[in-house]
Amino acid sequence: MKFEHLLAARTLKIHDNAIREILKVVSRPGMISLAGGIPAPESFPMEIMNGLSAAVIEKYGSGAFQYDLTEGFMPLREALSVRLERKGVTASPEEIIIASGSQGFLDALGKVLITRGDRVAVEAPTYLGAISAFNPYEPEYVRLETDEDGVVPESLERTLASGSVKFVYLVPTFQNPTGRTIPLARRREIARIIQTYDALVIEDDPYSDLRYRGEAPPPVKSFAPDHVVYISTLSKILAPGLRIGFCAAPPLIREWLVRVKQGTDLHTSTFNQALAAEYLAGGHLERHLPGILALYRPRQEAMLTAMAACFPETIRWSRPEGGMFIWADADGGVDMETVYQRAVARNTAFVPGRYFYAHDGEGRGAMRLNFTLAEAEEIRRAVKILGEEIDWASQKKSGSVSEMS
Amino acid sequence: MKFEHLLAARTLKIHDNAIREILKVVSRPGMISLAGGIPAPESFPMEIMNGLSAAVIEKYGSGAFQYDLTEGFMPLREALSVRLERKGVTASPEEIIIASGSQGFLDALGKVLITRGDRVAVEAPTYLGAISAFNPYEPEYVRLETDEDGVVPESLERTLASGSVKFVYLVPTFQNPTGRTIPLARRREIARIIQTYDALVIEDDPYSDLRYRGEAPPPVKSFAPDHVVYISTLSKILAPGLRIGFCAAPPLIREWLVRVKQGTDLHTSTFNQALAAEYLAGGHLERHLPGILALYRPRQEAMLTAMAACFPETIRWSRPEGGMFIWADADGGVDMETVYQRAVARNTAFVPGRYFYAHDGEGRGAMRLNFTLAEAEEIRRAVKILGEEIDWASQKKSGSVSEMS
Repeated sequence: MKFEHLLAARTLKIHDNAIREILKVVSRPGMISLAGGIPAPESFPMEIMNGLSAAVIEKYGSGAFQYDLTEGFMPLREALSVRLERKGVTASPEEIIIASGSQGFLDALGKVLITRGDRVAVEAPTYLGAISAFNPYEPEYVRLETDEDGVVPESLERTLASGSVKFVYLVPTFQNPTGRTIPLARRREIARIIQTYDALVIEDDPYSDLRYRGEAPPPVKSFAPDHVVYISTLSKILAPGLRIGFCAAPPLIREWLVRVKQGTDLHTSTFNQALAAEYLAGGHLERHLPGILALYRPRQEAMLTAMAACFPETIRWSRPEGGMFIWADADGGVDMETVYQRAVARNTAFVPGRYFYAHDGEGRGAMRLNFTLAEAEEIRRAVKILGEEIDWASQKKSGSVSEMS
Repeated sequence: MKFEHLLAARTLKIHDNAIREILKVVSRPGMISLAGGIPAPESFPMEIMNGLSAAVIEKYGSGAFQYDLTEGFMPLREALSVRLERKGVTASPEEIIIASGSQGFLDALGKVLITRGDRVAVEAPTYLGAISAFNPYEPEYVRLETDEDGVVPESLERTLASGSVKFVYLVPTFQNPTGRTIPLARRREIARIIQTYDALVIEDDPYSDLRYRGEAPPPVKSFAPDHVVYISTLSKILAPGLRIGFCAAPPLIREWLVRVKQGTDLHTSTFNQALAAEYLAGGHLERHLPGILALYRPRQEAMLTAMAACFPETIRWSRPEGGMFIWADADGGVDMETVYQRAVARNTAFVPGRYFYAHDGEGRGAMRLNFTLAEAEEIRRAVKILGEEIDWASQKKSGSVSEMS
């Protein structure tokens, strides 16, 4: 039987996640991967997992394995309420809902909010997984300009003034892919703008706990609580394989997110939510987080030091105070697709920048480098190879390398 | 901020799952609930949960907590391939994909296949959760007639001959809500029809392992493998709180389901998939399943015996050989909404039949009774109360009870 004629109209707009295809290529043995956005497995609290599991089975019994509320497992929502308060986000346990990873909220928000052709404003570049989640609902993307401090407020204001925008999607802290963080003053300015234009912002905040230096600005949500859907995850500070995301949203949005979640997966794994509740309420996160930071900080430093030593001066890159990524940009000077092909042949992988743009043609000279998965020594080796290939590609571009070399 | 104007056009077609609202009402202490489709918590293999968890942590280490393939955790897919072969469904591990409950596949199939206005054929009555999953994609439902043996082949053939149908959704074994099973000969006939019309069937099979008597007919998929998406779950034979569903689908459909799952939740919980793999591959299911059947069989017998004793002769009901539900129908003779209101006031709950129809106006004299959650003695007490209230309502309908009584 042929099925092509059965596919929905929207389906042809859904593409393979390009990064996922890259990740398949780079899972080859011997490859040093700076490509993924994957936490180091040695960052997981494996030494307490048996204990956590036993504690949950002891405490909740069969309740940890039964159907549960679509909104989420109440002990987890209680623990998250305390945690969010410390970040400046006030939300009662009832106002917090759980999904199967923060990706679950991106899909649900697309389903609840986007009618075909609606305008959705995203940073250029932006998180590819959000684009993947929204695409099946067929929005038109509007490009928000960014600089070293993240989204440019004037670009946001111009966009909101230019016509209706369903929502604005932002990753304000240690953004994926750039690693950039919007500073405090700009957060206030963004809050003022979205309140002025009565606009809805989705604030995706998966990385803010991974801060190696400096002081954390509060979430945008704390400055405009009624206008922001705040989304986060335990993937980076507990374990991504448990698939626990959480969200604090204005009431109407929250109610619709719950309704569509009934149709999507009924609820998120009760057992995993109970494990997460025990991890948070038992104080394990506070004890464990310094170890995660101590693991990633030197990896990031190794990368920044190696880049300074090995990358040509024509390339600029971000120096984020945390997160998982560094973004390097040669503008028009280098074709990073060429660099990628040659680097992979030398067992070194990253993600070319063009995959992080909602519109084609941007980011051809950029690259995203992840520093959480590989060890410092591997990172130094990989960056050296990348530096050599960037040199080669920039000389080729300027004509000094023949096509045959 | 007001958000109503931001909702997508489709959102207004998404309704609260009515049964979920009923389940909230009936969670009151003291209520005997025959309303849910919930496994008894004492059916979960609690005695091995600590051991399963420890075995998974020992065997897979941090791999059980890391991001994993969207398609699913390979050891689980291998165990399911063996299990499906025994049921008559041939699928290699690579051909099996995992979702966060079988509900996840219903949503994904809607997303991949349904363009607004597409015709989707469903049994009348049918599983409400499927309607909830498909609704956001805005199909038109076509009604398939059913009798004591499930969907009527002539009705299916007429429907497929009458114009294009995107897919046919069937629950062939111990159907929710009727408990009915399509017999072997009719399965062959259905397979012939869908092959003749080159139609796609979604075969939802969550209950077939819960067989208390009689012999299992093979899945429809085994008679028309290229035309059937087979979906099942571990919710009824392990634990629903782990949210593990699985699917064997023709290649093109499978590939699209994986693509949309990337945008929905990236993948299903690795840890829970590993627990399920250990449960299946370690032979635990074979050891544990007889105990589940021994728990439910007397509950079902208690319900059928009590119904024979307490329900008026004007009511007909199903006598399924397994599953979780009995369906009783008084046709026009009783308004089951009235019975529901009065029974709940007496701490006895069920789900009125009308909620299981894609179209309004049907099933007003019907009721779905669940026998897996309450104990036999509670079931006897509840059925007696229901019998009294049905008597009252049928006398009222025929005019012999005054409005004031």
